[in-house]
Amino acid sequence: MEHKIAILGASGYTGAELVRLIATHPTMKIVALSGDRKAGMEMAEVFPFLRHLDLPRLQKIEEIDFSNVDLAFCALPHATSQAVIAELPGDLKVVDLSADFRLRDPSEYEKWYGKPHSAPELQKEAVYGLTEFYRDEIKGARLVAGTGCNAATGQYALRPLIEAGVIGLDDILIDLKAGVSGAGRSLKENLLHAELSEGTHAYSAGGKHRHLGEFDQEFSKAAGRPVLVRFTPHLTPMNRGILASVYVSGDPAAVHEALASRYAAEEFLKVLPFGALPSTRDIRGSNYVHIGVIGDRVPGRAMVVAVLDNLCKGSSGQAMQNANLMLGIDEASGLRLAPVFP
Amino acid sequence: MEHKIAILGASGYTGAELVRLIATHPTMKIVALSGDRKAGMEMAEVFPFLRHLDLPRLQKIEEIDFSNVDLAFCALPHATSQAVIAELPGDLKVVDLSADFRLRDPSEYEKWYGKPHSAPELQKEAVYGLTEFYRDEIKGARLVAGTGCNAATGQYALRPLIEAGVIGLDDILIDLKAGVSGAGRSLKENLLHAELSEGTHAYSAGGKHRHLGEFDQEFSKAAGRPVLVRFTPHLTPMNRGILASVYVSGDPAAVHEALASRYAAEEFLKVLPFGALPSTRDIRGSNYVHIGVIGDRVPGRAMVVAVLDNLCKGSSGQAMQNANLMLGIDEASGLRLAPVFP
Amino acid sequence: MEHKIAILGASGYTGAELVRLIATHPTMKIVALSGDRKAGMEMAEVFPFLRHLDLPRLQKIEEIDFSNVDLAFCALPHATSQAVIAELPGDLKVVDLSADFRLRDPSEYEKWYGKPHSAPELQKEAVYGLTEFYRDEIKGARLVAGTGCNAATGQYALRPLIEAGVIGLDDILIDLKAGVSGAGRSLKENLLHAELSEGTHAYSAGGKHRHLGEFDQEFSKAAGRPVLVRFTPHLTPMNRGILASVYVSGDPAAVHEALASRYAAEEFLKVLPFGALPSTRDIRGSNYVHIGVIGDRVPGRAMVVAVLDNLCKGSSGQAMQNANLMLGIDEASGLRLAPVFP
Amino acid sequence: MEHKIAILGASGYTGAELVRLIATHPTMKIVALSGDRKAGMEMAEVFPFLRHLDLPRLQKIEEIDFSNVDLAFCALPHATSQAVIAELPGDLKVVDLSADFRLRDPSEYEKWYGKPHSAPELQKEAVYGLTEFYRDEIKGARLVAGTGCNAATGQYALRPLIEAGVIGLDDILIDLKAGVSGAGRSLKENLLHAELSEGTHAYSAGGKHRHLGEFDQEFSKAAGRPVLVRFTPHLTPMNRGILASVYVSGDPAAVHEALASRYAAEEFLKVLPFGALPSTRDIRGSNYVHIGVIGDRVPGRAMVVAVLDNLCKGSSGQAMQNANLMLGIDEASGLRLAPVFP
Repeated sequence: MEHKIAILGASGYTGAELVRLIATHPTMKIVALSGDRKAGMEMAEVFPFLRHLDLPRLQKIEEIDFSNVDLAFCALPHATSQAVIAELPGDLKVVDLSADFRLRDPSEYEKWYGKPHSAPELQKEAVYGLTEFYRDEIKGARLVAGTGCNAATGQYALRPLIEAGVIGLDDILIDLKAGVSGAGRSLKENLLHAELSEGTHAYSAGGKHRHLGEFDQEFSKAAGRPVLVRFTPHLTPMNRGILASVYVSGDPAAVHEALASRYAAEEFLKVLPFGALPSTRDIRGSNYVHIGVIGDRVPGRAMVVAVLDNLCKGSSGQAMQNANLMLGIDEASGLRLAPVFP
Repeated sequence: MEHKIAILGASGYTGAELVRLIATHPTMKIVALSGDRKAGMEMAEVFPFLRHLDLPRLQKIEEIDFSNVDLAFCALPHATSQAVIAELPGDLKVVDLSADFRLRDPSEYEKWYGKPHSAPELQKEAVYGLTEFYRDEIKGARLVAGTGCNAATGQYALRPLIEAGVIGLDDILIDLKAGVSGAGRSLKENLLHAELSEGTHAYSAGGKHRHLGEFDQEFSKAAGRPVLVRFTPHLTPMNRGILASVYVSGDPAAVHEALASRYAAEEFLKVLPFGALPSTRDIRGSNYVHIGVIGDRVPGRAMVVAVLDNLCKGSSGQAMQNANLMLGIDEASGLRLAPVFP
Repeated sequence: MEHKIAILGASGYTGAELVRLIATHPTMKIVALSGDRKAGMEMAEVFPFLRHLDLPRLQKIEEIDFSNVDLAFCALPHATSQAVIAELPGDLKVVDLSADFRLRDPSEYEKWYGKPHSAPELQKEAVYGLTEFYRDEIKGARLVAGTGCNAATGQYALRPLIEAGVIGLDDILIDLKAGVSGAGRSLKENLLHAELSEGTHAYSAGGKHRHLGEFDQEFSKAAGRPVLVRFTPHLTPMNRGILASVYVSGDPAAVHEALASRYAAEEFLKVLPFGALPSTRDIRGSNYVHIGVIGDRVPGRAMVVAVLDNLCKGSSGQAMQNANLMLGIDEASGLRLAPVFP
Repeated sequence: MEHKIAILGASGYTGAELVRLIATHPTMKIVALSGDRKAGMEMAEVFPFLRHLDLPRLQKIEEIDFSNVDLAFCALPHATSQAVIAELPGDLKVVDLSADFRLRDPSEYEKWYGKPHSAPELQKEAVYGLTEFYRDEIKGARLVAGTGCNAATGQYALRPLIEAGVIGLDDILIDLKAGVSGAGRSLKENLLHAELSEGTHAYSAGGKHRHLGEFDQEFSKAAGRPVLVRFTPHLTPMNRGILASVYVSGDPAAVHEALASRYAAEEFLKVLPFGALPSTRDIRGSNYVHIGVIGDRVPGRAMVVAVLDNLCKGSSGQAMQNANLMLGIDEASGLRLAPVFP
């Protein structure tokens, strides 16, 4: 069996991460790669770390023959993504990694992304790609929307707690530490090594980060009532990794139990023993999520810490996991790579 | 005018930072350096970055003639420090950088540090060294206790708010990101470059960090009632710097105003315009503190972010500032070094 | 088919890297792990990044039943290794990662390692594990000696040139930049993050690095006359990776041609187009070697740059490649993992 | 006494470093700052680490009244610099940090920088700014050309050896490791943290780096015959610092003696004891140079290692040192800042 794969937007980090994962996937084979500004180039020129692979040259999207493609990963910027996907064959399976199909409500999309959605029917069709919570819908979906990487981390820590009703809903606070690659391969002064290494700062603070749209949608749905979390990400001098420190009210033991039981059967979600907390170093380069719970000296308060690799489980690994489901194969295919440490 | 200075415990990072600062101080001159295990060595062997300075050789403490010393900085480990200081001449001015004299209540000391204090009279005598809040007491003190570096950062963000009564006292949360040098020059596996770089994790979580003793003492005093904050530090792959993300309830504008007015005349404490948040990169190697305030989308909630250099303003710079006061000279002497960026 | 594997010395970085690689190997299964000081512990305690794997608990070596083992990787310190291997069953296949069996001449061993070899017959039996140059001997070997990681990098750049006779033998200079993990998980002050990050320095300079013993042995053998290279490694603030800048006299085009033709059929050795030079970032976490050649403005001088991951191709990946050969399976089994970038 | 200073091109790293140094300089006062694209902005917006200083707003160069300026530092890109300086008042003291006036021979300038020099008379007038070798000329100069940072490092290691005639002139090899800030604040993909951290690579290899023009000019002058060195820089994941590993033929003891005696009276140049080698960590943020010498196992071969901070002694610190000389004050004014470690 072979699954023919196209990657649209292969010249960015999530596109390259997909190529990395597909390199050892048992059935996926890359038949087309697009990279608009770099069309005509070899991937080895754009990403020399992929030099050992036999890959098609980068093309423009319109040059790709999609009749020969089983599934397309779309790793384009938001806004571009909705325009491109609307033009693809209507029966082509698509996993989108952009923000374009994460929010089901067009007005929420406009609120967070600043302009109206151009493909609202697709927005309606798309299934939210948090695998462990939408597995059945994903299996039958044609279009799956990858989640935000921060949004995934926060949800892994919080959804089971909201569903189990073990925490207060009005004082949830997420203080998140994010690695650099989450900002992509974009030329911004504050992403230069000389600016970014050896320091840390908060960004999109004050309730402005767009992944709040996902938190609002998903937590409110899980709770059956509006839930507004506080959320502040901090840029941290590491290339990969997200650590979410989630502060909640509730009984710490109940919090731990809710997570441990909800994830007991999940291959990629590991809940540590009560009181142990995870490190981003231990999931780097992998599809695993480590989650820890500890109580506070202030009674009735708990801290949940969840870590994942933003490029893998937070985007491209999740995308592959969802693609596996859509293709009807083992969900973990190609994703059992161990983390890379040190 | 010349002030003769001894540094006890000069072979650690805070001791070396004192030497660095004294190198360009207008009146201080180092006459003695102790380093028990490294006694007999030149500082240039222990810290080659100090090679250009003409410094006395490291000695054992008992070899130092304190009659020739105007002021001693004591940069020894806690517990050791109280034993050593008890043996020093009773009229020698001392700035202690350890944890030994930060807590005024002997039972609090025992609670956080695990054994009874051996010099409770000195503990009573010592003035808490948060310069901008104890300036007058420090001027007349013989023994000043340097604060914890995390404790200083949190207090700079919170004390004016508690004093001004503009925040709720029962839901204060400090999520702190700490650089590596705060852990000292100690041989621990998790401090190795291969273990620590490229990742982050929480430590002393769950209300266990010893600097909570200082928060409790100082915030409760400022509030006139018990205040119990939540506080979690995270080890961050940068050598210097602390960033405290402090979450409070209160009117964001009032929070900003309380900080800006309280610190308007303070040379080293800079409050950014409302909505701007600081980065640790901008105070590295200096005695400056940058503080920012932003509101949240959740009404009545604010975030205060304070940054400082743990080795400088968080310990050795603070120590020098206090020493300047004790010696009756310009408080900022030797401390106007600009941060080093990049 | 299943191959039962023991790893002796599994609590260090090369041991952990072996576990990482075996995790996706098609036929290897770990049946025993030793870690003397950590015997009794779970691997997840020693290396939390391996938490997702179902692994045997760490044991003492003497507790392992080797009758149930097909092949043992020995990742112990040198000197310890020769003592341990001498006590293993005489027909057990062993891949040793230490320095103990790299030098065939007992007097050379004593010269570089400072004491006599205690198992000279084993030393004689051992095959030098530079796979692409000793493939046939390795296939039939019982005991294979892993090469030094720096020694491997230098040899990949130089052996084909010496064999082809395209460079001068008396002015070879290797300036090497080595990542931190090569120093292992040892508690040394200069390996602390605060000491090692953000700087670089030479070490074992002046012809003192022990891997010179391997260069001497192998280059002299390849040349049929004594060859003494100059070699200086520099510690570089990156966790994985070695870059060898090799300066030679010879025609640059002939140098490139000698490498390109010698490695044309080698899956893991990639020679870049003439004039392109490699980066350690592009082989991180993988078994690949990238090699580039450029001429100098000084006629008749060339520079060869070779990069590899010291923990993978430089030690544990090489060990697995050799083990595959010894077990009679596809040499690249489990080793086609793509590099991890960024 | 007060010296009124203008900095042209203050929005780059060397401009900011000048501001940092002037902040504690005893007589210099900044009266004008230019930053073409950022004209109108406060320095605190461009470089928040300078927030505590009272600085003039950034202007366009043509807005500056130079009649009120004693000395201008020109930190503009090459080519721009020659055009700007040609328009400045003819009696204004200028220290240029660009490459425009380093090469005395117009044809050499054209060869290395790809176009004819537009101000050849100024080129003739300019004094090469390697302070310790051109001190007397600098004292009387109106226009001083700052050296390349790599060029300075290599010359500190080699000039005394060439002058003393203790090394061979035809096999000098400089393998250099350079920190990131040397590339400036420019938006290039390979300078992003995600691309640059955790790895290393050679650049401008093969005799193409422009600082070779300086080596050729200065070494040939010192030797009285043409000297062509080999020189390869490697980008290293650290923000500040250059380490030059210089390989020479000659008697190691004589090499050490030549350096030690030549620099015995130089405040900023420190020669370590024979056999000790320096680290970039020990000069970070300072104007000091550390130099070490070691012999090789190959007789008659030596290695010299020199380290300096590319932004300080390699450019802005050197510029200030030269400016001090031009202003007739203590050469070390404002430059005795100790390095920052860790």
